Amino acid sequence: MIALLTDFGLKDEYVGVMKGVIYSINSALKIVDLTHEIPPQDIIWGGYILYRSYKYFPRGTIFLALVDPGVGTKRDIIIMKVEGYYFIAPDNGLLSLIYEHSKSRRIVKVNQNKFSLKPLSATFQGRDIFAPLAGYLSRTKRLSNFGLEIDKLNVIKFPVPVVKTREIRASVIHIDRFGNIITNLEREFFQKLGWKNFKIVIKGKVIKGISSFYQKKDELIAIWESRNLLEIASPNGSASRLLGLKSKAALRIIKV
Amino acid sequence: MIALLTDFGLKDEYVGVMKGVIYSINSALKIVDLTHEIPPQDIIWGGYILYRSYKYFPRGTIFLALVDPGVGTKRDIIIMKVEGYYFIAPDNGLLSLIYEHSKSRRIVKVNQNKFSLKPLSATFQGRDIFAPLAGYLSRTKRLSNFGLEIDKLNVIKFPVPVVKTREIRASVIHIDRFGNIITNLEREFFQKLGWKNFKIVIKGKVIKGISSFYQKKDELIAIWESRNLLEIASPNGSASRLLGLKSKAALRIIKV
Amino acid sequence: MIALLTDFGLKDEYVGVMKGVIYSINSALKIVDLTHEIPPQDIIWGGYILYRSYKYFPRGTIFLALVDPGVGTKRDIIIMKVEGYYFIAPDNGLLSLIYEHSKSRRIVKVNQNKFSLKPLSATFQGRDIFAPLAGYLSRTKRLSNFGLEIDKLNVIKFPVPVVKTREIRASVIHIDRFGNIITNLEREFFQKLGWKNFKIVIKGKVIKGISSFYQKKDELIAIWESRNLLEIASPNGSASRLLGLKSKAALRIIKV
Repeated sequence: MIALLTDFGLKDEYVGVMKGVIYSINSALKIVDLTHEIPPQDIIWGGYILYRSYKYFPRGTIFLALVDPGVGTKRDIIIMKVEGYYFIAPDNGLLSLIYEHSKSRRIVKVNQNKFSLKPLSATFQGRDIFAPLAGYLSRTKRLSNFGLEIDKLNVIKFPVPVVKTREIRASVIHIDRFGNIITNLEREFFQKLGWKNFKIVIKGKVIKGISSFYQKKDELIAIWESRNLLEIASPNGSASRLLGLKSKAALRIIKV
Repeated sequence: MIALLTDFGLKDEYVGVMKGVIYSINSALKIVDLTHEIPPQDIIWGGYILYRSYKYFPRGTIFLALVDPGVGTKRDIIIMKVEGYYFIAPDNGLLSLIYEHSKSRRIVKVNQNKFSLKPLSATFQGRDIFAPLAGYLSRTKRLSNFGLEIDKLNVIKFPVPVVKTREIRASVIHIDRFGNIITNLEREFFQKLGWKNFKIVIKGKVIKGISSFYQKKDELIAIWESRNLLEIASPNGSASRLLGLKSKAALRIIKV
Repeated sequence: MIALLTDFGLKDEYVGVMKGVIYSINSALKIVDLTHEIPPQDIIWGGYILYRSYKYFPRGTIFLALVDPGVGTKRDIIIMKVEGYYFIAPDNGLLSLIYEHSKSRRIVKVNQNKFSLKPLSATFQGRDIFAPLAGYLSRTKRLSNFGLEIDKLNVIKFPVPVVKTREIRASVIHIDRFGNIITNLEREFFQKLGWKNFKIVIKGKVIKGISSFYQKKDELIAIWESRNLLEIASPNGSASRLLGLKSKAALRIIKV
């Protein structure tokens, strides 16, 4: 099985053509769309989604992850194997979180020419280089076929909140389809701080504590969402609409 | 085969992750997207689409239907079998039309803990409870494995038009991709009234009778669309744009 | 394998229901979405995308291509076989480019009633006529089963740029997800002209020459994109946003 995570969207035929290329090489497999709506070139969010999603797929799944601001430049392409999962991606930090949280991994730097379509277009390596790679990897799964083994990959840092004595400064990093406001405060990160009593302030509104389910009686709540991030939600509607908040913004968690 | 109907949209990775969970349990099956663009929490429209769509799928298909304003509250989850089709849904009225139009059916109230992922998130039962259920149901199809049989489910009423002596008051309930305006007047409902001569009034415009195909010579027509609802269409363009109509609105059918 | 190209979008359940119909006839096959976001009724762009995409799919693939402004009128439906690929489409010009660039082809005019669902809806031939056709074709692939052989189909012309002595007048025909501006100037068309030195003028901005990759140092570049059309791009962002260009527009290529 191959799972795709890209910032290609579905407005164009880009994803469809990549599937054509993959099936041309291995018609027996399944291709699943994890998501194609990573914001254009947002390596941070793309990497986080991949990190929080991959374990829900069958072991052996090949993830083709394409958020690639450097397309056409000399950045490398890597294949990484972690716990029986395979990841194909540009070496631009997209795999940082999986890499850093893995106990062991194997990585190869891909020999790009060997498997590419010819002629190569100037703009669409997803079709010409990455899709064939995924197709051939699904046939053999032998990493040594694809390039030389390396130890390290390029790592970028997930922008964690700033912690002060009595205050955490966090950021909104995503607003989902339902208007839920997703922040960069991770559950593990917060729980290590051991705070008992606190309030959350966002756009002048105050929320007390963190709910354990969508309580309908409250206008605005905070809750740990399914990716383990702090979410601001309005159980009867859209928190984003309620707060007039359309994109990135700051929030504070204050000890009381 | 599992078919998915949700209000999750494709902006997030929610649907992709659910597919990962399902394939982890049963990698042999096919998953088909019926739609993920039911308006958030719109049980009426979601239920209608499911009711009008399911018979186009192969018998034996499992429909996982998730429009669930009550996620996280104590509402039940049900599996219903009708005419060889299977439906998994929250017991919130989403299956009303299929239930009421079925001659016979079997329903079980699901033992939610038995099949769920652990730990359960606070916000994403689609991934943690419903996807595993669909996966396991596809493996056995034995309803008794999933909970105790019940007789009835929660039913909500589809908002039918108001009929007076010489006038029907109907509502716009959907505008499709092409700008076709879909109303809540069902063909069967209207034909039972036996009206011969009538005009349709919407936003000050008058349409005479109902066309049997997209007649290009008329600016605005009424037609029975593919879900058996009355549609207002502009065969050369978008009726929605022509009328400046973006969301819900009223229309009248007047006997002449 | 069946690949779908339509202008149906994903806002509605139309595509999902068609898949249900196809799988009801042939549950063994794979259905791939090439794209459903062809602009409503845009035969030119739909036909171009299909022409530039089909060779990336495995030979034997059946393309169901539905951009059909004439739905419900008496236009024919055709099946064309070219180089081992199959195309089902309304006979409205959608297959023009593939037809004209093929060395040999077989075409049948489909006997529409033979394979259709009954009763036929007034509005959704994709579900009632085309999906069953695709399903049955995937089972036999014998064209003679579906209608009588014909020689020609309706052809429409792709709107090529106007060439003058020292100037080419081209048009923007698409803006993609990344804000890349796609024009109607094809690489082959331009290279036949043999121009060496030229500048490109769009919305008052001047671009010198054509880049062979996304050069990050320039604000605005021209590049041959993956469909072999001239693209105006902003390697660090969105050319569309940079130029304030949201839809169709003109550009000039001027000999210097």
